[in-house]
Amino acid sequence: MEMTLILGISILGLLFAVYLIRDVMKRDTGTPKMREISDAIKSGAEAFLRRQYRTIIYLAVALACLIYILYAFVRAHNPNDPASAAELALWTTLSFVFGALCSIAAGYMGMWVAIRSNIRTAAGAVRDMNSALQPALRGGAVSGFFVVAMSLLGVGGLFTIVQASGVANDATKIPLLIVGYGFGASFVALFAQLGGGIYTKAADVGADLVGKVEAGIPEDDPRNPAVIADLVGDNVGDCAGRGADLFESTAAENIGAMILAAGLYKANQADFVSHGLPLLGILLFPLVARAFGIIASAAGILAVKVSEKEDPMKALNRGYYVTTALAMVGFYVASRWLLGPEYYFNFFLCGMLGVLTALAFVVITIYYTDYRYRPVLSIAEASKTGPATNIISGVAVGMESTGYPVLVIGIAIVGSYLLGANSGLQHAGLFGTAVATMGMLSTAAYILAMDTFGPITDNAGGIVEMSQQPKEVRERTDRLDSVGNTTKALTKGYAVGSAALAAFLLFSAYMDEVHVYMPSFSGVINLNRPEVFVGAMLGAMLVFLFCALAIKAVGRAAAAIIQNVRDQFRTNPGIMQGTAKPDYGQCVDIATKAALKEMIAPGLLVVGMPVIVGLAFRWLYYATGQPSYGASGPEVVGGFLMVGTIVGILMALFLNNGGGAWDNAKKYIETGALGGKKSDAHKASVVGDTVGDPFKDTAGPSLHVLVKLLSTITLVLAPLFI
Amino acid sequence: MEMTLILGISILGLLFAVYLIRDVMKRDTGTPKMREISDAIKSGAEAFLRRQYRTIIYLAVALACLIYILYAFVRAHNPNDPASAAELALWTTLSFVFGALCSIAAGYMGMWVAIRSNIRTAAGAVRDMNSALQPALRGGAVSGFFVVAMSLLGVGGLFTIVQASGVANDATKIPLLIVGYGFGASFVALFAQLGGGIYTKAADVGADLVGKVEAGIPEDDPRNPAVIADLVGDNVGDCAGRGADLFESTAAENIGAMILAAGLYKANQADFVSHGLPLLGILLFPLVARAFGIIASAAGILAVKVSEKEDPMKALNRGYYVTTALAMVGFYVASRWLLGPEYYFNFFLCGMLGVLTALAFVVITIYYTDYRYRPVLSIAEASKTGPATNIISGVAVGMESTGYPVLVIGIAIVGSYLLGANSGLQHAGLFGTAVATMGMLSTAAYILAMDTFGPITDNAGGIVEMSQQPKEVRERTDRLDSVGNTTKALTKGYAVGSAALAAFLLFSAYMDEVHVYMPSFSGVINLNRPEVFVGAMLGAMLVFLFCALAIKAVGRAAAAIIQNVRDQFRTNPGIMQGTAKPDYGQCVDIATKAALKEMIAPGLLVVGMPVIVGLAFRWLYYATGQPSYGASGPEVVGGFLMVGTIVGILMALFLNNGGGAWDNAKKYIETGALGGKKSDAHKASVVGDTVGDPFKDTAGPSLHVLVKLLSTITLVLAPLFI
Repeated sequence: MEMTLILGISILGLLFAVYLIRDVMKRDTGTPKMREISDAIKSGAEAFLRRQYRTIIYLAVALACLIYILYAFVRAHNPNDPASAAELALWTTLSFVFGALCSIAAGYMGMWVAIRSNIRTAAGAVRDMNSALQPALRGGAVSGFFVVAMSLLGVGGLFTIVQASGVANDATKIPLLIVGYGFGASFVALFAQLGGGIYTKAADVGADLVGKVEAGIPEDDPRNPAVIADLVGDNVGDCAGRGADLFESTAAENIGAMILAAGLYKANQADFVSHGLPLLGILLFPLVARAFGIIASAAGILAVKVSEKEDPMKALNRGYYVTTALAMVGFYVASRWLLGPEYYFNFFLCGMLGVLTALAFVVITIYYTDYRYRPVLSIAEASKTGPATNIISGVAVGMESTGYPVLVIGIAIVGSYLLGANSGLQHAGLFGTAVATMGMLSTAAYILAMDTFGPITDNAGGIVEMSQQPKEVRERTDRLDSVGNTTKALTKGYAVGSAALAAFLLFSAYMDEVHVYMPSFSGVINLNRPEVFVGAMLGAMLVFLFCALAIKAVGRAAAAIIQNVRDQFRTNPGIMQGTAKPDYGQCVDIATKAALKEMIAPGLLVVGMPVIVGLAFRWLYYATGQPSYGASGPEVVGGFLMVGTIVGILMALFLNNGGGAWDNAKKYIETGALGGKKSDAHKASVVGDTVGDPFKDTAGPSLHVLVKLLSTITLVLAPLFI
Repeated sequence: MEMTLILGISILGLLFAVYLIRDVMKRDTGTPKMREISDAIKSGAEAFLRRQYRTIIYLAVALACLIYILYAFVRAHNPNDPASAAELALWTTLSFVFGALCSIAAGYMGMWVAIRSNIRTAAGAVRDMNSALQPALRGGAVSGFFVVAMSLLGVGGLFTIVQASGVANDATKIPLLIVGYGFGASFVALFAQLGGGIYTKAADVGADLVGKVEAGIPEDDPRNPAVIADLVGDNVGDCAGRGADLFESTAAENIGAMILAAGLYKANQADFVSHGLPLLGILLFPLVARAFGIIASAAGILAVKVSEKEDPMKALNRGYYVTTALAMVGFYVASRWLLGPEYYFNFFLCGMLGVLTALAFVVITIYYTDYRYRPVLSIAEASKTGPATNIISGVAVGMESTGYPVLVIGIAIVGSYLLGANSGLQHAGLFGTAVATMGMLSTAAYILAMDTFGPITDNAGGIVEMSQQPKEVRERTDRLDSVGNTTKALTKGYAVGSAALAAFLLFSAYMDEVHVYMPSFSGVINLNRPEVFVGAMLGAMLVFLFCALAIKAVGRAAAAIIQNVRDQFRTNPGIMQGTAKPDYGQCVDIATKAALKEMIAPGLLVVGMPVIVGLAFRWLYYATGQPSYGASGPEVVGGFLMVGTIVGILMALFLNNGGGAWDNAKKYIETGALGGKKSDAHKASVVGDTVGDPFKDTAGPSLHVLVKLLSTITLVLAPLFI
């Protein structure tokens, strides 16, 4: 019953996405000039994605083999294993591969539609506002629904298959056999976000520095050879990257919550049995809640319509409120049905706490990145004394912006823990935090639709600009583009917040998992042990090192693009005079190659370091011959993971909000304030904006993935450290 | 016997400082023009220090009253207290006040001599290199010896008094009665470093932006009204600030190591008795080791002489090697004598590990901040494409520079822990890490002499420049100044490394202390508990928030100075023509007021937040009525403290090294590389240098103090959270 519902709703979600695709595809595709530009973006984005996915698949296959070998041949069999050694190895590897493939498929479909929606949004803008808004939002929603429904279908399907095959010696252990799914998803997400993030910012920074600063031509000017690469970048970074990010959030959260649900069931078996609550209901509660969220999001999408005069942001917010309200109702139904009328209420409150946390993150992000408020205004003000003070105050704003989000997460975690612990069930505190995470992620499909809306409207603006449409058309796309910038900032805030909660959920699951494999494990990560402290320090260091690599990668890739554009301007003077067409393909090609090359080192660092730390301390534990005073491998890795997560979240907030604030300080000055465009303050603010680019669109979003990947990788590899 | 030695050597150290003062003071004070400038610096620095100390004393008195009230009236008496409630309150408060006063006295004396050595260095430069180097180093050494000897004398003296008064019901508990000394020292250090750091960088950034960038006049030009404030800033920031920083490192380390030594004695009492090792010997070992370090440093100072042709850096290094070698010998003698021939060897090795850690930090700092190596060269290269890429690559270098130091600290902690644990004594692992810290800090007096050397030579250069001395004199001071820049960078690396080790030692002491007060405490800081995790997140957030406040403070104070200089230029056009003298006093006054005002908020944040976190979670623990699943106050504070420390160390490395690298990238371009001065690359590098200023001289060094203050404050307040 529960599973039928889950699979049924996932398939309905996919069908809804197909309906949206048909709705978008039948719309007008504008003038031939528009199509020419859109085709260039399309072929660039598809070429990048194909090559990127090829690289990721090679890496994933290598890793899958390694996982299989480690599990099947290196690891000693453990009497507490959830299945036989061969089956454990097989299913872990299979679910890893399956997770990676689902993530790739969802990302590809989302992008496929996004690069076809941009032209239809541009063409719609020729007519009226609603004709422009609808293809942008519905095109974006395809991404949202593919991501969330695929992730749910994958987890539900895997669960069903493993259950049917009978390999698990106990239904509560099924989630342990499919943890690979979450790792596969995060593995793809890391490279998708990193590669996409490097591509988009290398193209953006390169195009700006050589076009706006050196040649003095405006943004999206067709004479700039890097302009198509820049537009391609918006798709591969924001759309494919963030899609993969939220795919893994939902996938990992689904599995992690099931592991905790299994633990909850075992601790309260007698109670549940006496109240007629079956194991499968508890176990599948997270998936059912997610399924209801899909329905809520679909209703939200359909509710969005805009009149010519109305602010498009208001229409989008209306959809969000519809989604939120319905998600709350769904949560109520799911919890009351599956957790029973005696126990559900506190968990329902946990879910609401999660929904409110999402809202709080959105509000805080707006405060720190919108130019109506003090932080951005202070950066704009500091631009008057030049780029140095602009940078100094942007760094200060970014650092300051970590304050409220940490308080909110703290309240959400402690609050939902206390609610769970007081629910009347035993050991239900951590499950309470898991339910809060579910609440936060229940609106994920709608949020993702808003996010992908960003690159579509951005591209539409570029197409309208490059095909020289009349002023009122450009005004429409400009309005949509500015709404898109806001939604991109919001969804980034949402992504950090949900990553923080998901990561906490995942390492609670990690502790439960280690406990299953090693019942003697105390469940303690004692920071006061020197090895754990050192592990924690290494986790924090990983975040700094990863950011350094990601930021440097953008710098190097941008330099390659700048060189190419300079060469094109020099060898073909007709470009600047407007008599010759620049070779857009060269820049697209350079950005593609550079991004693929540069994503490898930081990616491998993140995947490799937890393994090395885990194995090194496991070795030290035995080599020193005095295990009695030493911490074991899993404990050190736990410290590594938790402190890496904390620092990753804070750093992501710093980078995202700092970057967003710099961006909007520039936009504020461009509205005419403090001297407006061409003033010295504006020049200074352009420096800040450029510095913020790799912060907010490469390193920051990659950190969301990093914190979850750390958890999923340790979930998968935990059995090796024991 | 041990105590006589300790007090004797401390007094000898102070006498040596007096000898150095006499040596410096009898030297030539140059021309009347030189004296005029030096007098302006002197009066500015003294005025600032007097006002700053007055503010600090007010705050300290308020805090002392609060501590007394909390201890005497709020806190319930605990049967495990080291003394009666009244005496505990009295001694904690008294030692806090005493620590604060000693720190102020040491800082004041160091500065008193530094602002008198600058003129003598300038005058010596007229004659020859050695005559310039010696007053600079010896003047700096006064600061080093006052700091280290005062800190030792204070701890030793307090210990003697408490012992003689008989208040402690057990000699092993004496250190618990005097933990206030370390807190007093860190309290002063925080404000001294913050106030000094804000002052120096506000003056520097203000002078640069309005002088170099707007008016186009060179550095240290007498026409710039902010130039004297800038020279004053070097003294109050680098000299008084870093002095207070290392005063508290040594003070807190002394007490923390004694607490651990007491724990070690109790765990191995039978063994020690059977080998004829008395309690006092074990307890005072840290102080004796420190005393021997003072002798080693004095020998090192006296060994420094330089010929006209020799590189002054080589001479300074020679002195450092002498100090290091002698400190090793002293360590050997002290450990063999007091820890006994059976057990001393592993601890001796721990000490050597500490000495090597100091060396490693110095080498890593050089690599990341010297323009002979890749990191700084990459920033210089990036300056070619403008300020944005300069900033991006500087941020990347700063983040990358956290890697090796973390590995080194990790090896030091785990290595010394294993050495201690294998020493043949029980529970000696943490004592091993404490001994490594002692090793690292044994050369502190010499390091501090090198550090204060920096502002003295910088000032001497300013005096020579402003009094228009002949070229060969300027060349001498320029050489010394560039050596001073190197030593300042080195000592900052040393200060972070020693802060990291000292902090680890201090929270080991914190755990021991909590255990004494609450024998039921498990000694576990379990990050897997939601409250502890949230506490840890709050600790990390504190670091970001503190940096934001410190950086913004510099921005605001600099803006005030810029405004004043612009006004002076406008109202008195004679200044720029060189016909009228600017009013230096106004800028000095503005910097003073701004620094004192701006240091309050970040300072109170650091002092207040551990208290609020501790009390809030203590309240939550009881209010929720289910202590069984909750973590107690001390555990949450432990998580807060440890993760705050980790993030603080990494952030300090990022800020210090990033700032240092930007600075030297500019200096590299000024040597003529990449187009040299007045090229676009140079302009871009000036932006990076300015951004780096508050990073490396305000926020970064204040973080060293912050991490130790977090520990000392929790050491003092731990009894309140229980």
